[in-house]
Amino acid sequence: MATSPNSPTLRSWIDIPPTSDFPIQNLPFGVFETDERGPHLAVAIGGYVLDLYAASQHGYFEDLVELGDAQPKVFRRRSLNAFLRLGRPAWRAVRQRVSEMLRHDAPELRDNEEAVRQCLLRQTEVRLLRPIKPANYTDFYSSIEHATNVGTMFRDPANALLPNWRHLPIGYHGRTSSIVVSGTDIKRPNGQRKAPDEDLPTFGPSRQLDFELEMGFVVGTGTALGTTVPIAEAEDHIFGLCLFNDWSARDLQSWEYVPLGPFLGKNFGSSMAPWVVTLDALEPFRIAGPVQEPAPLPYLAQSGEHNFNINLEVALTPAGGPETTLSRTNFGLMYWSMAQQLTHHASNGCNLEAGDLYASGTISGPTPDSLGSMLELAWRGTRPVPLADGTERKFLLDGDTVTMRGYAEKEGIRIGFGEVTGTVLPSE
Amino acid sequence: MATSPNSPTLRSWIDIPPTSDFPIQNLPFGVFETDERGPHLAVAIGGYVLDLYAASQHGYFEDLVELGDAQPKVFRRRSLNAFLRLGRPAWRAVRQRVSEMLRHDAPELRDNEEAVRQCLLRQTEVRLLRPIKPANYTDFYSSIEHATNVGTMFRDPANALLPNWRHLPIGYHGRTSSIVVSGTDIKRPNGQRKAPDEDLPTFGPSRQLDFELEMGFVVGTGTALGTTVPIAEAEDHIFGLCLFNDWSARDLQSWEYVPLGPFLGKNFGSSMAPWVVTLDALEPFRIAGPVQEPAPLPYLAQSGEHNFNINLEVALTPAGGPETTLSRTNFGLMYWSMAQQLTHHASNGCNLEAGDLYASGTISGPTPDSLGSMLELAWRGTRPVPLADGTERKFLLDGDTVTMRGYAEKEGIRIGFGEVTGTVLPSE
Repeated sequence: MATSPNSPTLRSWIDIPPTSDFPIQNLPFGVFETDERGPHLAVAIGGYVLDLYAASQHGYFEDLVELGDAQPKVFRRRSLNAFLRLGRPAWRAVRQRVSEMLRHDAPELRDNEEAVRQCLLRQTEVRLLRPIKPANYTDFYSSIEHATNVGTMFRDPANALLPNWRHLPIGYHGRTSSIVVSGTDIKRPNGQRKAPDEDLPTFGPSRQLDFELEMGFVVGTGTALGTTVPIAEAEDHIFGLCLFNDWSARDLQSWEYVPLGPFLGKNFGSSMAPWVVTLDALEPFRIAGPVQEPAPLPYLAQSGEHNFNINLEVALTPAGGPETTLSRTNFGLMYWSMAQQLTHHASNGCNLEAGDLYASGTISGPTPDSLGSMLELAWRGTRPVPLADGTERKFLLDGDTVTMRGYAEKEGIRIGFGEVTGTVLPSE
Repeated sequence: MATSPNSPTLRSWIDIPPTSDFPIQNLPFGVFETDERGPHLAVAIGGYVLDLYAASQHGYFEDLVELGDAQPKVFRRRSLNAFLRLGRPAWRAVRQRVSEMLRHDAPELRDNEEAVRQCLLRQTEVRLLRPIKPANYTDFYSSIEHATNVGTMFRDPANALLPNWRHLPIGYHGRTSSIVVSGTDIKRPNGQRKAPDEDLPTFGPSRQLDFELEMGFVVGTGTALGTTVPIAEAEDHIFGLCLFNDWSARDLQSWEYVPLGPFLGKNFGSSMAPWVVTLDALEPFRIAGPVQEPAPLPYLAQSGEHNFNINLEVALTPAGGPETTLSRTNFGLMYWSMAQQLTHHASNGCNLEAGDLYASGTISGPTPDSLGSMLELAWRGTRPVPLADGTERKFLLDGDTVTMRGYAEKEGIRIGFGEVTGTVLPSE
């Protein structure tokens, strides 16, 4: 019986500091290129990437029948999508094999200097690309604290949650074309906005640019149009999770969104982290979600642990200035689980596709220092947020860099998500 | 100087009845396959498809420098997308050449029996496929009559249009995975719904299944993230137009759509026609749109003729029953033009992609017999629509087939769109 790649006793022959997001128990998937190589699929290990195409060419996956005849070419792609379509047995087989290759007592790769040189590259020497080509993108609204805060600010504190909110995971379709990888600058969008005290709308740079701290999950196994997904099987379709920043122009959004929802206030750019942490790697971090009251309808009812205990934080760094941590929260707080989101999404027969991205919506906690957007942190501009450089923010300024980080931790093992970061450029 | 493929004096050596949607002046693009062949790109001509891959292999496009080294493989694809990426010079060159090949006085193809056998297939003998793989899909809400009707029914007849409606073309992102080609059955979706007189939502088959008569336009030339499209250049990005049915489950939609817009009430299926009529072929049918009051902001201001005079109709055929025409309207009525929609969409820097689909929203006219949805025709169920078989409808029943047709006509030339049709299957 092979050792589980999640076993806390595993250690690697690669030197990995204990603060690294990428110990041997993690092995998240991504895509990279260099001037000479790629794009190739890769796994993160410590400060390195393991080039899966190179490893495949060196024969390390030769006996993985789960890959069929897809290798090595499935690893020489610009996105994980083709690999995702191979299905969970293939994802698991590769992660298991990579784990075996990197164990401290496995000489096969460790002692092959030429193979190490070909397969392992420092992360600082590669360009990490957007890991998937998002087939479809849906953004949910599943944090009860966030939905309550927004309802309190913009509607009625006594009836902050809309009548449908506790009955179904509210979501909307987002734009796939403008989803970019971490590190991509975000240009402040122009657009129409009309403040309540203005008679007419004007067109110009957004005056209320914001971030939204989110997690996204990537679907690996699709469904056929007209079929549904029983809630007990929902997680079978999920490949993994990543950090996600749903940049938002609040002034554009509030002018345009009635009655058909967010549109240009969102689709100028969304940032995803380069690493997708597998659901398998997160198994040790399952927790129960909040009690749902009223109980969801039967098709959404689930018991057991379907939330994940993932610490999250968001930080802001002004141009040249020191970083300020704005907020710390936890993904485990989400009212609606990913399984419920997925089952609801497919409940009308809507087909899922490999490479689909489903984001959580802003993740806010119950306290003022655990809020996932500037809108909430500065409470609609009424309580500006102080920064370490002595300035304050109601919304984002040009030059501001927003960085989100996340990790799960247990028994000394830290399963990290890397970071998703982006800098605001001035509008044109 | 080559004769314009739009010239009304052109006629083909193929026998084309005057009622055909596909005279030599049209030449819309699509994709087909048979048991032995394809998928290949094609052009419709009368009752035939001209197989572009076969034509390319026979050398008919050999001297089209606009195709570069893309042929013949660009014509052996499951979608138009790769062809779209070649750009307008390539689209025009192929349409021009096909026009020349099919002219009554052009012997090159006409007199080559073997080539005719290879290149021309009866439409009844091929399967027409979804012509594009939609890269992104946005649905607008640009008929002032439709928006007014909905506002009157669900909000306030005195203030039917929301404050933003006359200032910008309202739109939202839709789901690409569930866009299917005409002829695909549509399964009645299950979902959550709660009527105003019910205390709690229930889950089950939609009781208010509807169609929406729309036109979609296909973007052929994309843009880079962070760039915009001046309104004078917007039409340069449009490849062509097609009929579109945005099936809608009104009960699901009304329960879920506040505050983030339509979601499961729409994404169980949308139908597009198999033929995309080029914007070039529609040049003779330009008309001015309605006067816009107040005048749009400068970035949306346009003069000249940017609407298109296209007659539209929708018909319903119960299982086994005769067809009833439900409505006749015209695409020229749209308040917001396609150019305005596209420029608005890109005004925040959102990038467009080849293969993007942008639908108009329901196209309703000003009279009770020109409404584009059952919701409006039966006025929220208060005035059931009589059918030719003696039954009546408030919404769609299982077994109902909805068929939409459209054509532009001038100087005896009819540029038709074929049809988009679909039959409602019972839910599971």
